[in-house]
Amino acid sequence: MKLKTKNFDWLAGRPVVILTEETAKKLNVHLDERVSISFEGKKIFAVVDLFQKIVKEGEVGLSNEINSYLKIKENSLVEVSSAPLPQSSKIIKKKLYNQILSQEEIELLISDIVNNKLTEAEIAYFIAAEKICGMSMQEIIYLTKAMVDNGKKLNFENGIIADKHCIGGIAGNRTTPIVVSICAAAGLKMPKTSSRAITSAAGTADVIETIANVEISSEEIKKIVNKVGACLVWGGSLGLAPSDDKIIQVERLLNLDVEPQLLASIMSKKISVGTTHLLIDIPYGDGAKIKKSEAKKLGKKFKLIAKNFGINLRVVLTEGEQPIGNGIGPVLEMLDVLSILKNKEYCPQDLREKALFLASEIMDLCGIKDARGKAEEILLSGMAFQKFKEIIEAQNGKKDFEARIKNLKPAQFSKNIYAHKSGKIIELKNKKINQLCRILGTPESQKAGIYLNKHLGEVKENEVIFTMYSESEQKLQEAYNFIKSDNVFKIK
Amino acid sequence: MKLKTKNFDWLAGRPVVILTEETAKKLNVHLDERVSISFEGKKIFAVVDLFQKIVKEGEVGLSNEINSYLKIKENSLVEVSSAPLPQSSKIIKKKLYNQILSQEEIELLISDIVNNKLTEAEIAYFIAAEKICGMSMQEIIYLTKAMVDNGKKLNFENGIIADKHCIGGIAGNRTTPIVVSICAAAGLKMPKTSSRAITSAAGTADVIETIANVEISSEEIKKIVNKVGACLVWGGSLGLAPSDDKIIQVERLLNLDVEPQLLASIMSKKISVGTTHLLIDIPYGDGAKIKKSEAKKLGKKFKLIAKNFGINLRVVLTEGEQPIGNGIGPVLEMLDVLSILKNKEYCPQDLREKALFLASEIMDLCGIKDARGKAEEILLSGMAFQKFKEIIEAQNGKKDFEARIKNLKPAQFSKNIYAHKSGKIIELKNKKINQLCRILGTPESQKAGIYLNKHLGEVKENEVIFTMYSESEQKLQEAYNFIKSDNVFKIK
Repeated sequence: MKLKTKNFDWLAGRPVVILTEETAKKLNVHLDERVSISFEGKKIFAVVDLFQKIVKEGEVGLSNEINSYLKIKENSLVEVSSAPLPQSSKIIKKKLYNQILSQEEIELLISDIVNNKLTEAEIAYFIAAEKICGMSMQEIIYLTKAMVDNGKKLNFENGIIADKHCIGGIAGNRTTPIVVSICAAAGLKMPKTSSRAITSAAGTADVIETIANVEISSEEIKKIVNKVGACLVWGGSLGLAPSDDKIIQVERLLNLDVEPQLLASIMSKKISVGTTHLLIDIPYGDGAKIKKSEAKKLGKKFKLIAKNFGINLRVVLTEGEQPIGNGIGPVLEMLDVLSILKNKEYCPQDLREKALFLASEIMDLCGIKDARGKAEEILLSGMAFQKFKEIIEAQNGKKDFEARIKNLKPAQFSKNIYAHKSGKIIELKNKKINQLCRILGTPESQKAGIYLNKHLGEVKENEVIFTMYSESEQKLQEAYNFIKSDNVFKIK
Repeated sequence: MKLKTKNFDWLAGRPVVILTEETAKKLNVHLDERVSISFEGKKIFAVVDLFQKIVKEGEVGLSNEINSYLKIKENSLVEVSSAPLPQSSKIIKKKLYNQILSQEEIELLISDIVNNKLTEAEIAYFIAAEKICGMSMQEIIYLTKAMVDNGKKLNFENGIIADKHCIGGIAGNRTTPIVVSICAAAGLKMPKTSSRAITSAAGTADVIETIANVEISSEEIKKIVNKVGACLVWGGSLGLAPSDDKIIQVERLLNLDVEPQLLASIMSKKISVGTTHLLIDIPYGDGAKIKKSEAKKLGKKFKLIAKNFGINLRVVLTEGEQPIGNGIGPVLEMLDVLSILKNKEYCPQDLREKALFLASEIMDLCGIKDARGKAEEILLSGMAFQKFKEIIEAQNGKKDFEARIKNLKPAQFSKNIYAHKSGKIIELKNKKINQLCRILGTPESQKAGIYLNKHLGEVKENEVIFTMYSESEQKLQEAYNFIKSDNVFKIK
């Protein structure tokens, strides 16, 4: 049926059409059922919403997801038809019955996710099936490939492309800017794309954004990396393995970690940027996402996938019992990073050591001899700091580094948290610290967060354990209440 | 934050609010995240849609699901806040990890579903976990109880309340109006609520609706049943176990059958109407939903639940290899029912026999002696027909039975399908027949459907196997194409 389009500048999170009940009846579709919309040779699928007031009979309201795909103007005529269950819904059902999927099936499923043919509920069915039934290594490899093939790529010329990835879960732990600066100064090419925070206090992209532009086009990234050897950008707008973003959006509903998806998600992004040498950091332990035995198993799976795609991969297992570094929150973490790159005496030694360790592991993986010695030399000599400055200025497109870092400071309202007795801090959980920072306003509020004066170990009564920062007195009070009601740390 | 409400007469299928991006930013919520909306002591949860054009800053557009719950007028001030993950999302996660849920957890989950605190994707996670991990009988009993407790009830005075339920899957098979008429004529009280078709050609409610009002309030139902002994109404608007409707809506996305949900769904509706004696008909076989061995196991589970709730339950397993009766589609099935109740010679014997069998099983279960003999007597004497007429007229509120049935006839466009050779019809699958009827326009088009001249067994070349009816020539042609491309029947 031909319908006239209406545009409401409406971002619905998925393709949705608005019809009157009468129009829906004529199309023989009901609420939440599926229609296809065709326009000038392009076709997209959407679910049905019913409004009586804002569209008339014979009209169809389109959400922005449809408008931007079909590139359509208001009052155009589009063909709208009821659409059957997509083929991929049968594939999801198959996985729910614990059956192995073929390469073709996985390819079709991922393509349908990217093309918005599936609702969030259908994607949830797939994630649940993946979570409970698991996937074979072969299926995970097909999944990774399908995610790469249904997305864009960064194409560099031949040669080593180095990369690192941490599976996350550790508060602070902002090694990436330091590692990338050292490795790039050592001559390695590192087109580093990072994510924003999902449940943590900050992601690498949030931290870099305190002093630099991180939303950069693929074309610009290539120019920057070819010029200064590396970048530190947000990967979210590059269209690399876009199915992953949709799947993560649905996983977030329950804060689920689904192993096959985690593996395919990380590896697909790395393959899409052309990584040849990859270091995977898996923090383990009581406060981390996984235990040491699981970390080892996970590491092996990463290696199997990497081998299949011809990537040189090394896995390091690191302790993840407590936060790493002192600052937690975008600006506070950037201050930690700068203090290390500038070789300040007060810099957090745990973060410095971990960054040096990871950098030398990558350098060694890429065939650089005496990697540890060289990494230290690059850091101490100021070459790493110089490289970091080059990267930031390349991303900003101007020489404004000093001006950008001059005014970096934490939020105006602050409160110290003191030890109520002398003893040993025996617990300082990453999850609680992240929750605390979210209450204080991170990552939206860049200056919010906490500064740790103490890590696990000895503390004296009335010593400051950490300082909280927020741009809102109310949030500061809420954070204080959270500490009182919940054991953010334990002293024994 | 206080926001001014806007009403667009918008049925979104779930509670959704429309905000501008600026308002969302101030509330610190993103697309598809959750907010609570409070008004005059009532609170509801909804997900966020972002529109720029139809609401302004400081305004909130509410979907009808919210308006009807809060009973709110346009331009009212409501309190809108970002809402955390509901407690029940943790419970769903627990089930995804294959853990047993407690009574309290199941209760909370169902209550959150009824109160619209969960998105479709979250419900999908739960259904998938139920499907793959299964549920213990104890969990299914808790689930049934929670579904009953979170809904309305029909309260009859003490005494026997008889009921029947068929787990479905068989085309035609419209026994209910006949069974209810016979049993009510035998003195049993049967407040029968039925569903509309989901994927089949017609549900009992669709069939009754061809001659009677089926959307009747609980109060009216009580009056009708107390007067004539039975009713034949649509159960969907009575608020019985409403969580079930939402769960089924999500199951439909993949046409899933989830056993724990099926058990809880059927039993909760029966408990809600006060059933004391219940006959469950489980058709089995090649063309049915399940095999005979599975049907036996399923029957045992029904009995366990019934025992827990003090219901006298009997299970009958019936052959479900092919459609039962000749007419398939609302009007065509009503014509079958009338021919049997009127003791016409041409009436479909298979449907008549099955209805007599089920009616006598119910009568026997309720303690009526020589049930089979009495059921036949009631049917042959016209008492069943008389009772049916009383029920229909009670539901219509006037004596219009004869006028209503006088003009019942199938749709104007028809096409015969002939046997292409002599032999045996060895396959006539329910699913294909239902699909064919849907293509012809059922259940929306009441007069559409097919009339079977033949069932499984001998056929001669050029004999009519069935006649198709549709109100649209185009649909008739589509149905014909479907037959040509798909084996609706097989002759050997």
